[in-house]
Amino acid sequence: MVGEAGGLARAAVVGTGLIGGSVLFRLRDAGLDVAAWDPDPAARRQVRERGVAAPDEVEEAVAGRHVVFVCGPLPTLPATLARVAAATDDRCVLTDVGSVKAEVATAATAQGLGHRFVPGHPMAGADRAGLGAAAPELLDGAAWVLCPGPTGVDAFRRLAALLVDVFHARVVPMSAPEHDAAAALASHLPHLLAGALAGAVQRSALRDAVLALAAGSFSDGTRVAGGPPERTANMLLGNRDRVLAELIEVGAFLDELAGALRAGDAAALTGRLAEARTARAALRGRAFTSHRREFPAGADPAVELAYLRELGAAGGHLTGCRVAAGAVGYTAHLPATPPLG
Amino acid sequence: MVGEAGGLARAAVVGTGLIGGSVLFRLRDAGLDVAAWDPDPAARRQVRERGVAAPDEVEEAVAGRHVVFVCGPLPTLPATLARVAAATDDRCVLTDVGSVKAEVATAATAQGLGHRFVPGHPMAGADRAGLGAAAPELLDGAAWVLCPGPTGVDAFRRLAALLVDVFHARVVPMSAPEHDAAAALASHLPHLLAGALAGAVQRSALRDAVLALAAGSFSDGTRVAGGPPERTANMLLGNRDRVLAELIEVGAFLDELAGALRAGDAAALTGRLAEARTARAALRGRAFTSHRREFPAGADPAVELAYLRELGAAGGHLTGCRVAAGAVGYTAHLPATPPLG
Repeated sequence: MVGEAGGLARAAVVGTGLIGGSVLFRLRDAGLDVAAWDPDPAARRQVRERGVAAPDEVEEAVAGRHVVFVCGPLPTLPATLARVAAATDDRCVLTDVGSVKAEVATAATAQGLGHRFVPGHPMAGADRAGLGAAAPELLDGAAWVLCPGPTGVDAFRRLAALLVDVFHARVVPMSAPEHDAAAALASHLPHLLAGALAGAVQRSALRDAVLALAAGSFSDGTRVAGGPPERTANMLLGNRDRVLAELIEVGAFLDELAGALRAGDAAALTGRLAEARTARAALRGRAFTSHRREFPAGADPAVELAYLRELGAAGGHLTGCRVAAGAVGYTAHLPATPPLG
Repeated sequence: MVGEAGGLARAAVVGTGLIGGSVLFRLRDAGLDVAAWDPDPAARRQVRERGVAAPDEVEEAVAGRHVVFVCGPLPTLPATLARVAAATDDRCVLTDVGSVKAEVATAATAQGLGHRFVPGHPMAGADRAGLGAAAPELLDGAAWVLCPGPTGVDAFRRLAALLVDVFHARVVPMSAPEHDAAAALASHLPHLLAGALAGAVQRSALRDAVLALAAGSFSDGTRVAGGPPERTANMLLGNRDRVLAELIEVGAFLDELAGALRAGDAAALTGRLAEARTARAALRGRAFTSHRREFPAGADPAVELAYLRELGAAGGHLTGCRVAAGAVGYTAHLPATPPLG
């Protein structure tokens, strides 16, 4: 049965919004025994109407579970985590799906949960929010970052096995600070730029004419500006220093483009645009080399952790994680020309 | 027969790249008598292989045509236009599909072509370039800007009728400078921001990790950075002053977002993001009111031109244009709460 590999056959989801609801229904469809809780009674009612147990108390929802996905808004995570931890067995794996990882990782470690909380971030989403927008297929095949700490390698293995089995996830192992640094460019800056572009149009005297002309480039470039402002603000505030640092880098490249444009320097402008296109082309046409890596029972978890983090930092991911009798076998993929090391 | 309304049954396309090729094959599929020319002999050969006449000389391709679409790179347009004009009848309607309009409009007027050259810009495209990427459906239903000058109203009517018939275009009438001002925000700034984001990632030490995490927001936000650098550079250079002016506005909004973020001011940040979302929501859920407007034979073209330009500036468009015995009837649509006037 799915979930058996990691021994996580009984799962709970706390917070049944867009991501939590999508996780919940996919776990249910995969045959796991699931329960859910949300602070909103209406959301709990909707969950029940879709055939999933949703008791009124979070403690009841998570009691006796092997794994709990904590899916509320970013600022609520440390408190929810403490409540869920207190109501679950010390073997129960805990994870979250927030878009920023260092803060919640630090909070969990301070709560003594480093051995069973594995910070997570599935790289998928939608402009809409809430259970109504949730869909079991939303996270299928997504890149799913997991950030195991020094004492969390065993929990990581079990969770990774579940994510690969149920979501066909590409599991990207990273340290929490590395995730936040990469996510600043991969997700948070795109939200900031989309907001700036849409905001400038909103204030422009030409607003209606601009919207009349808006085709692919504007529509794509501002899509995430259509998301809930609170959610985006929480994300940006949760990774403030990295976002501001990367904004300087993006601003520097923008200044170079604007400088070449101002000078009418076609060669310089084309050169910068060609440089930018390299990253975009790499995104579309990525080739990977695959390998298997095993860690026997009793091996030093620090070596395994170093391997995992190096894999993620190099742009790699896992599509297989087999746990048996204390040993683990990973199926891993690295970009074909990896600047590893 | 399609094209009869405007009397434009014989058409030519000069420059058979992504847009020109798409125009060509849609005109052919609609039953028009078409011919094409491209400076590249290989492109002419490919056109012939797809069953369209493509003589070796541009003069032969355009001779005797009722309408010619000039579709080459922006910097080549004035020279190509002069060559095409010299080889066509003075009644032959000329248009282009470039992404910037004021410069080519001025050049055409200087060449004495204001009465038959109607600057055009279909708001559609693709990251790829060239005839291989062309598709008859690429421009179906697109917003298609046309910029009639004071002496070009008759040519505008005939061309608009053709575009509505063949492409089901939403024809947006604007002055060339108004187009360039709106396109700066609707298209050129999105290209610039996409380039800055992709360029910063390309230079980042975290490049591979960022690409591993890149999901919707990055992928959408940088899509146009995957286009040909020369094409994007020509577009930006062709509308330099407006692009730089609007960059200041986008930069100002970005500074407000960054300021709120730096200050940790969640309310201010959420407020700015909510403001930005208003424009984005208006793009998705636009409602229009429709009306009919007729101009009888012998009416003052200046009145018609003023009507058309006001329609476009207010975010409106035409989906019908019926020409008969010197009169015209337009089917027009305006945003439901138009800030007209």
